[in-house]
Amino acid sequence: MIGKLNHVAIATADLAEAVKVYREMLGAEVSAPLDLPRHGVTTVFVTLPNIKIELMAPLGDNSPIANFLARRPAGGMHHLCFEVDDITAARDRIIAAGGSALGDGKPTTGAHGKPVLFLHPKDFCGTLIELEEV
Amino acid sequence: MIGKLNHVAIATADLAEAVKVYREMLGAEVSAPLDLPRHGVTTVFVTLPNIKIELMAPLGDNSPIANFLARRPAGGMHHLCFEVDDITAARDRIIAAGGSALGDGKPTTGAHGKPVLFLHPKDFCGTLIELEEV
Repeated sequence: MIGKLNHVAIATADLAEAVKVYREMLGAEVSAPLDLPRHGVTTVFVTLPNIKIELMAPLGDNSPIANFLARRPAGGMHHLCFEVDDITAARDRIIAAGGSALGDGKPTTGAHGKPVLFLHPKDFCGTLIELEEV
Repeated sequence: MIGKLNHVAIATADLAEAVKVYREMLGAEVSAPLDLPRHGVTTVFVTLPNIKIELMAPLGDNSPIANFLARRPAGGMHHLCFEVDDITAARDRIIAAGGSALGDGKPTTGAHGKPVLFLHPKDFCGTLIELEEV
């Protein structure tokens, strides 16, 4: 059911420092920062040959990653995003198998303009999972 | 410098449950378990079109993931493994830029039989990074 791993998201309190780490220490290609006020984050993408790493810093007062960074001030891996063909069918299969979605379980429009849904980490080995319909 | 993301490693205390989650809930292709006594883990690989997810459970008394699971009993994302062409050159560049390697900084033979080196999470946005020479 799940297809490609679309991206790995890493939360950081200091986006400039994270960019420096990926660009200068690891020698990767890093995009310019993009503010996503509706999603409460500023992001940059690290482009690797097979995948993107999304570096995210909080934006505004109610950032969805503020709690994560309060628990882990140094930052860390925040979620994995898997691609699916049909997000409603995927959600229904997961719920039938005992998993749970965050919020009301209805897909919303994600940062890339596509339908997304988050799954509860408790059901997935402690990993927050985003499904994105492609 | 870094090439492909080779794998995302997820630590779990219950490998059978993790296999069930990825195979039954997420509908992915999951390999048979492989004991790696020298590395203190039992692993399975989830094969996605662009990448592998490595699910790891502790094996033996001195598993390197035991401390991680003591802090996070539900499991979680443990490390990212990036491919490099020349692991010694990569290490030297990273150290020159202010990063640090774990242990004595010398590459060892990883679970896939290739030279590997781990980098300190404090320098990489709270993320443990493995470099693998390919």
